[in-house]
Amino acid sequence: MLLKNDNQALNYDKGTGEEKNWLVTETRFNPESLGKVEAVFSLGNGYMGLRSATEERYSNEVRGNFIAGTFNKFLGDKEVTELPNAADVLEMSFTLNGETFQLTQGDILFYERTLNLKKAELKRDIHWRSPAGDEYKIIFSRFVSLDNLHVIAQKIAITPLTNDVTLKLNSGINGQITNTGTQHFEEGVLRLYDQKIMKLEARTTESAIDFVHFSRHAFTLENEEFTPKNTIFMDRRKIFTTFEPETIAKNQTITIEKISGVYTSRDKDWANVETALETFSQVGDYSTLFTAHQSAWQQKVWEQYPIYIEGVDFDQLAIRFAVYHLTGMTPAHDNRMNIGAKGFSGEGYKGHAFWDTEIFVLPFFTTSNPTIARQLLEYRSLSLPGAVRKAAENNYEGAMFPWESAWLEDGEVTPVWGAADIITGEPTKIWSGFIEQHITADIAFAVWQYYQFTGDQDFMEKHGYELIFATAVFWQSRLEKKGDRYEITGVVGPDEYKEHVDNNAFTNYMAHWNLEKAIHYYELLQQENPAVLASLSAKWDLERNYPKWQEKSAKLYLPQPNDELVIPQDDTYLSKKIIDLTPYKASAQVGALFLDYNLEQVNDMQITKQADVMILLYLLENEFSPEVKQANWDYYEPKTLHDSSLSRATHSILASDLGDKALAYSMFEKASRIDLGQNMKSSDAGIHSASIGGIWQVVVNGFGGVRMLDGKLFLHPHLPEKWTELSFPIYWKGSRLIIHVTQTSTKILNTSNQDVVLTLNGKEISVVANTTFTTN
Amino acid sequence: MLLKNDNQALNYDKGTGEEKNWLVTETRFNPESLGKVEAVFSLGNGYMGLRSATEERYSNEVRGNFIAGTFNKFLGDKEVTELPNAADVLEMSFTLNGETFQLTQGDILFYERTLNLKKAELKRDIHWRSPAGDEYKIIFSRFVSLDNLHVIAQKIAITPLTNDVTLKLNSGINGQITNTGTQHFEEGVLRLYDQKIMKLEARTTESAIDFVHFSRHAFTLENEEFTPKNTIFMDRRKIFTTFEPETIAKNQTITIEKISGVYTSRDKDWANVETALETFSQVGDYSTLFTAHQSAWQQKVWEQYPIYIEGVDFDQLAIRFAVYHLTGMTPAHDNRMNIGAKGFSGEGYKGHAFWDTEIFVLPFFTTSNPTIARQLLEYRSLSLPGAVRKAAENNYEGAMFPWESAWLEDGEVTPVWGAADIITGEPTKIWSGFIEQHITADIAFAVWQYYQFTGDQDFMEKHGYELIFATAVFWQSRLEKKGDRYEITGVVGPDEYKEHVDNNAFTNYMAHWNLEKAIHYYELLQQENPAVLASLSAKWDLERNYPKWQEKSAKLYLPQPNDELVIPQDDTYLSKKIIDLTPYKASAQVGALFLDYNLEQVNDMQITKQADVMILLYLLENEFSPEVKQANWDYYEPKTLHDSSLSRATHSILASDLGDKALAYSMFEKASRIDLGQNMKSSDAGIHSASIGGIWQVVVNGFGGVRMLDGKLFLHPHLPEKWTELSFPIYWKGSRLIIHVTQTSTKILNTSNQDVVLTLNGKEISVVANTTFTTN
Repeated sequence: MLLKNDNQALNYDKGTGEEKNWLVTETRFNPESLGKVEAVFSLGNGYMGLRSATEERYSNEVRGNFIAGTFNKFLGDKEVTELPNAADVLEMSFTLNGETFQLTQGDILFYERTLNLKKAELKRDIHWRSPAGDEYKIIFSRFVSLDNLHVIAQKIAITPLTNDVTLKLNSGINGQITNTGTQHFEEGVLRLYDQKIMKLEARTTESAIDFVHFSRHAFTLENEEFTPKNTIFMDRRKIFTTFEPETIAKNQTITIEKISGVYTSRDKDWANVETALETFSQVGDYSTLFTAHQSAWQQKVWEQYPIYIEGVDFDQLAIRFAVYHLTGMTPAHDNRMNIGAKGFSGEGYKGHAFWDTEIFVLPFFTTSNPTIARQLLEYRSLSLPGAVRKAAENNYEGAMFPWESAWLEDGEVTPVWGAADIITGEPTKIWSGFIEQHITADIAFAVWQYYQFTGDQDFMEKHGYELIFATAVFWQSRLEKKGDRYEITGVVGPDEYKEHVDNNAFTNYMAHWNLEKAIHYYELLQQENPAVLASLSAKWDLERNYPKWQEKSAKLYLPQPNDELVIPQDDTYLSKKIIDLTPYKASAQVGALFLDYNLEQVNDMQITKQADVMILLYLLENEFSPEVKQANWDYYEPKTLHDSSLSRATHSILASDLGDKALAYSMFEKASRIDLGQNMKSSDAGIHSASIGGIWQVVVNGFGGVRMLDGKLFLHPHLPEKWTELSFPIYWKGSRLIIHVTQTSTKILNTSNQDVVLTLNGKEISVVANTTFTTN
Repeated sequence: MLLKNDNQALNYDKGTGEEKNWLVTETRFNPESLGKVEAVFSLGNGYMGLRSATEERYSNEVRGNFIAGTFNKFLGDKEVTELPNAADVLEMSFTLNGETFQLTQGDILFYERTLNLKKAELKRDIHWRSPAGDEYKIIFSRFVSLDNLHVIAQKIAITPLTNDVTLKLNSGINGQITNTGTQHFEEGVLRLYDQKIMKLEARTTESAIDFVHFSRHAFTLENEEFTPKNTIFMDRRKIFTTFEPETIAKNQTITIEKISGVYTSRDKDWANVETALETFSQVGDYSTLFTAHQSAWQQKVWEQYPIYIEGVDFDQLAIRFAVYHLTGMTPAHDNRMNIGAKGFSGEGYKGHAFWDTEIFVLPFFTTSNPTIARQLLEYRSLSLPGAVRKAAENNYEGAMFPWESAWLEDGEVTPVWGAADIITGEPTKIWSGFIEQHITADIAFAVWQYYQFTGDQDFMEKHGYELIFATAVFWQSRLEKKGDRYEITGVVGPDEYKEHVDNNAFTNYMAHWNLEKAIHYYELLQQENPAVLASLSAKWDLERNYPKWQEKSAKLYLPQPNDELVIPQDDTYLSKKIIDLTPYKASAQVGALFLDYNLEQVNDMQITKQADVMILLYLLENEFSPEVKQANWDYYEPKTLHDSSLSRATHSILASDLGDKALAYSMFEKASRIDLGQNMKSSDAGIHSASIGGIWQVVVNGFGGVRMLDGKLFLHPHLPEKWTELSFPIYWKGSRLIIHVTQTSTKILNTSNQDVVLTLNGKEISVVANTTFTTN
């Protein structure tokens, strides 16, 4: 039995008591919208991510298991590298008295699939009537351990309600999985050890990373362990076992546990398959694993990021949802890896890292877990060789960071061709990898932001100064002399609906900022740390670069507000045609515009995909007056389709700054529902990492009003009308502060042993060590 | 609504009048047994084969589209070559008033899926009630053209019965298809031409064969053509269009035609993609294509092979089913290609050719279409380089044909590892590629058989003598001197449950036969055609080989019948343990034995997989007395599991020879149901080519009693009791004879201009040119 109406397929308030605002529940099974829950309910621990496909298989499913940093190219230089979809261990299909368990058959008398954010556990609770009329209670549980990063644990409890039943279960490891048809693995050895542990080995075809997957099963009947009759079978890239327990009496419960592990030669502690097998053999049962898993989530996540919102239950859930996914998507265990634009929740964007990390996700870590933020920035430092190569290939100097980044040495990995042009029928060329260049400044910006928040001098000396200098070297080589000024022509800015534009305001300002910061730190190090400067000078030829930075930065053209105070997004934007965007803004479908126009046509209209001038006004906020901000909002927002998930969070924060609480909150409402909302087609290819980072930014930087300006901490909360309380932690120069905001007061708890100076609502205050500051 | 009981899921007698015994019908939809119909109802034309997966997709489906001879290896030398599963053009999924058409939803009020063997067309006729209660009549039709080998044509007619309806159709070309997870293609160009023709290009990764697929659509409403609103979209390896026609009124019929084409650079007339596009642009509509297709089947197949059986309708259907698939599986257009053990109906055996061709399938063509038989033998001739390489690699001389054969130069392509050993948990080594050597003699045998039936001297001079000599050169180098005799040790015979045996009777006798034939033709050519001999002598060093043939053949050990007249299958078989096979013989599951024993254990028991001594008694029938045949039948048949589909047909023919009509018929009944029967799991990986050739052999060689012995034609019909008539064509030395047999008479129509001499029921007769001979 299928339920058609999907308007409210997700429920947010099933949690009560301890579980209040911790549960997201799918209340109806719909085989047409499996992708949504697969991605939004995906489980992850930073080492790997697992789409929440069901144990039994459906034709529209997209199963996915991604292991951080295991990039592979299908065919040498013919395709870009991507995160391969590893073997599937989730599959467990079964028959009950000969009838296959499939929710498309029979009747669903009760159905709930719940993601418990606190426990990071997925449960399906089903009362099913088979086509023959037999009823069963079936509960599926699973988690991806945050305690043992290699482990996936599953459990099924089946209770026949109307008859005794014979169960036949097929379960194993399936390596026939591909990335939308692309097979990244050589067929490897299959083995059964001790009639118990199934093994599947695989090696990536080009990067030659060894994978080994294990699975083992345990059965209990009414809590009594037993070993059912079982038959192993191997097929191509596939090892499965058929289990046939004795009859299960009516109302008895049979429980099946499947514990699986994955290890790869990219693991820092990888030795070989035998060692991995030995390690896996030590892994405990579901309940033991779950206890450790839960306590890891408690200590590493929920106690680290205690964020409370009172007033709107959904908003509390949404910020927890954001923290849940920020944890799962971030390879905190290995600084050679970064965050994919879809996390590990889908094949979208191939696991590649974009500016999404630095501008949208990193502020969360910089502010609330600097250790992880540092690791993510170290990834960029370790990626410098690829950025240098990209610069050289484009006849520039220094480090030109790739628009899309994968493994350290890979350099630029943006695919060159995208979807069809509806007018010509030909594939569209993706220009971002060639000319979306602002990312190089964005990374420098994130380095500086991290440094200002943390004061991490060690990082700066090892990585930070070099990143700022190397990127500035790029920019000075990139600038083009036009008359007596410098320009940047032929780029794509954040608004990817405008290709080959000249002097994109965001790009020019950020490049300028980057050069200025390099000049500043060059001069600072000359004074304070000539040794560090000397070594970087030698490597990056800074003595030649420094005067060029000075000359070019001073003459770099920065588009100024016009008579209406509007900053031109680029040299020609303001002279382009304006069309009525109302129908497209009303459409639920992202990209609806392209059903009527092709990119070439859109290029000639005043249509903006996402925050462009707006993101400039946010990042470099103290370079622009409130009047300029308001004028640009009024001009650009109506022309902005918010077709990128990166757009609305930025707009919400700016609206807070402009004092429009209602607008800020309505933008937040939309931003926080990009993945978590009721649009069942929003997230098929994966969750939106940047949008999820954006949820946190709206809460903390927007409503919480936390800012770092010129190296100083500012706090100016703008609590939404509907919220009564907001509290969250931030780190400032190593001190952990807990900020607690109500409609009438702000409380700052300084948990550290040093005083913290900050500007609260315009007034500088000092929060004394180990005390709480309260306004009244 | 799903129907569970599959005991009679296939129906054989829906055809009446003109269609009597031409239709196979699936009368119930069962998503658990899709593979059966996908394979058994598969469509093919020798250029390509298409599994009959449905337009809409189901989770247990296995879609398959195989183009003859387009072999590719996934990863260089790490995997064996296989026939890649090309892009899928069948997919057409649609919603009706927003409800997805899926047979697992709603109710099926009427269902028939019919393969019309005569027209080679597949039809699905469905009356469906959607979950919302709306009813629709939907008829799907399709065929793979025998007139234009590149074309696949589909048609859907939808009639809403209860409401007006809006239709939304997604249709296109999907290149995400793999061979059980292995992707054989590079991602190629996608294009839409003239808003009409979709194109997907792909190139095999290693063999670099270019593929281009095209699809176009046409819509009619109540027979009026129109162009609906449509939107193109491209994804990875995928190009699709969404069509949204205006509302269809209740009881109106909308028809959608999809015409697709595939061309590859392996085509003899391949030029480039542009030329292919031009060719495809000329292709007509469904009805035009269908007329030409049907007339091709009529002329090339049904008039070429008029085989009539009266008495048992199923048997008439079964022989047509055999001829249908023998036509579809045979690449008659290109002598660089051969017949896969599963035809083009599945991934099983990777599209490789085995002895199945020469011993089980070729007699059909040798007897009834010598032109095609010659092409298939030319394939072996063109494959000689690989066979020579295999011999050299094994330190032998001459041509050692590969156990499994793919593209001409490939040589041996048998995979080395197979399914799991249930005792050790390790994969089982497949020895056939190393030591199943009788195929080399089997090919020589088929050459001789072809020559005797056809008298094709041109073939012999260009290919035939060389094949017989080259294989004999191998055998003389292969024989091992043991004392004063020669032996062949360490082989696998036809019974693959016995590995590493010494002096397998079948192998030794066939090797001996091969050497004797080489000696015979060497001496004959010395007399009659020294020029041909000279050139072959130079190439194969025959002057050195000829005396070795004589010496070794004379001393080759040929296992003789023992006191009980039993010929030992090999040196140790008769001394092995005997177990009760009754439960395994009763089991419907092929390979059931291996759930209890592993191959090592079975190796030590008197258990035979398939005809071994029996096939020897059939192929070299005049070397053994009826008493020896009977004694060996009585000894071996109870120990034979018939776990290979090659077994029962041979047994049936032998039973006919032994005069046991009932036994012969009961063996035939089982053999003819291997694919066509009600076992819905029999054919998932594809139909059984050899078994299908075997059906024809039982009819013509068994019941019809057609034999060639020592170069002479024999006819000794043994009509089953239930049959009243049997007639079939055979060619003898270029003369086409129509044999017509009843329980009391035999009639032979000689349609040629020359008299034909043959032995009928033991008496030599001459059938005068252009007359009919009748017994009475």
